[in-house]
Amino acid sequence: MKANRLQYQELLKSELQAVEKVMLQGPANIPPLIAAPIDRLITSGGKRLRAALVLLTGELYNLDPERAVMMAAAAEMLHIATLIHDDLIDGAPLRRGTATINSHWSAGATVLSGDIVFSWATHLAVRCKNLLLIDKFSNLLEVICTGELSQLLGQQDRIPTEDEYYQRIFAKTASFFGLAAESAPLLVAAEKEERERMQKFGVLVGEAFQIADDLLDFTAQPEELGKPVGNDLRHGILTLPVLYFAEKKPDDQRLEAVITNRADEQIINSLILEIQKSGALTRARQAAELRVEKALKLLVDFPASPYRQALEEIATFAINRRY
Amino acid sequence: MKANRLQYQELLKSELQAVEKVMLQGPANIPPLIAAPIDRLITSGGKRLRAALVLLTGELYNLDPERAVMMAAAAEMLHIATLIHDDLIDGAPLRRGTATINSHWSAGATVLSGDIVFSWATHLAVRCKNLLLIDKFSNLLEVICTGELSQLLGQQDRIPTEDEYYQRIFAKTASFFGLAAESAPLLVAAEKEERERMQKFGVLVGEAFQIADDLLDFTAQPEELGKPVGNDLRHGILTLPVLYFAEKKPDDQRLEAVITNRADEQIINSLILEIQKSGALTRARQAAELRVEKALKLLVDFPASPYRQALEEIATFAINRRY
Repeated sequence: MKANRLQYQELLKSELQAVEKVMLQGPANIPPLIAAPIDRLITSGGKRLRAALVLLTGELYNLDPERAVMMAAAAEMLHIATLIHDDLIDGAPLRRGTATINSHWSAGATVLSGDIVFSWATHLAVRCKNLLLIDKFSNLLEVICTGELSQLLGQQDRIPTEDEYYQRIFAKTASFFGLAAESAPLLVAAEKEERERMQKFGVLVGEAFQIADDLLDFTAQPEELGKPVGNDLRHGILTLPVLYFAEKKPDDQRLEAVITNRADEQIINSLILEIQKSGALTRARQAAELRVEKALKLLVDFPASPYRQALEEIATFAINRRY
Repeated sequence: MKANRLQYQELLKSELQAVEKVMLQGPANIPPLIAAPIDRLITSGGKRLRAALVLLTGELYNLDPERAVMMAAAAEMLHIATLIHDDLIDGAPLRRGTATINSHWSAGATVLSGDIVFSWATHLAVRCKNLLLIDKFSNLLEVICTGELSQLLGQQDRIPTEDEYYQRIFAKTASFFGLAAESAPLLVAAEKEERERMQKFGVLVGEAFQIADDLLDFTAQPEELGKPVGNDLRHGILTLPVLYFAEKKPDDQRLEAVITNRADEQIINSLILEIQKSGALTRARQAAELRVEKALKLLVDFPASPYRQALEEIATFAINRRY
């Protein structure tokens, strides 16, 4: 299955083009030297899942197209702002197949570029003219950055609990999916239960998406993933399969070596094989599937429509994707 | 004259305490390791000129105290967010007499800390419940960062024009003072002319403040300034006195050396002496004084009050300060 064959991309073709156009209008006075790589980041796309969640739920709630496009653009710009700072922090050379800003410019220029994109994202959110939405939008940046900061500073001297794992992926992915799915009912002033239902839908899909992402680090072919398998383990990031494996084999010496930063490449590779054999991947996959099932149930009250179907497809894609 | 003897600090004592209290409430989930240095940045104060501009104009326009305090806190938090990223970019070890975040933590942790403080600042601005204000607030971050980015990337292979100088100090300081002074008439929905008048007041004071700051780099005693004289020149930042000197002596070889990054310490020191002797400092001081005069004229229609008087004092202080 390829991303470009997902229904929403055909169904929302003109809306997604409008979203990209708004994103490209960008901050007026940004120096051209930096505007160019930001524009490349925008046009090289990514999956635009956040925009799709806004636009598809927008259709379900009859949100006016202008505000739907504006909020979808705000969400994708916020995502780009966080990517710019993340790539700086990770020293990543490439993003979406194009050179990162930090690979060409100083750390200072990259920090400022991310700040500018963030202010542009906020400006787009403001244009949706809803105080509650703007507040949730600025809060989202706080949640994402706080989660990342906690991980960066966190003393990983033990296996995290399942709760801690879900807190981390909420901050990293699920909170953002939640706001994207919640924004349409929020903007049309639907009942609180409607907002909460769609927020929950987004969070469940986001969790499934992140669990699947974490699974790919154990199962993908390196050429599909664009990075070597076991990258998380190598960086001391302990994901759901590791947690499940540790439950079964709490005294595994290789695990101990990873936690205490003493694992060499041989230990990492042997641990990956052991985790693959242990059944932990299947169990993690089931956890993701359970979330998709729950998410799909939240959609049953909507009349059948291509938009509902596309949302269901995104939920299912979250766990079936191979990239 | 010492900052702690300015009227506004006594006059606004309880309001400024309320502002600090709101600032310290901070993002809920920030890791304590980073919350502590952010709290130190908040409590070590600074002059709180932005807060004072919001609060004093708030009194002139009968803005309700709660929103005045909220907007004052939002402005000071935004200022702190930019300082956190600036200190990272400059590699500064100290700020307000306390160790910077970047001096203790990784670049990544510092970037994220600034992002979190920025989202907190936006959240406070949102609590003023005015879409136009929030939009101007997010735009302000864009203006500040774009100005800084242009300076960082700018090829300083020539003397900037006066226009370019004023653009730079608008982005750096005057735009912020403008929004701080404009926010009260904006929040009480005063006539557009009122908003524009107060924005202009803030911009003029901000320009005078920044020109005076640039002058200090030529005239201050190092122990007063907390950094060596001529620091701007050493970093290739050409301020108003340099522009005026260059008008008089366009062919000065030392100037050429500074522009082309070939100036050693001896050249810098000799150029500073030459600029001091040239009358350029007096002319720059007059430019600042002219702005203060214009700013004061914008206040004459307000009935006499301690608040108007304190605003006048801030305008005057902008050019009389020695630190």
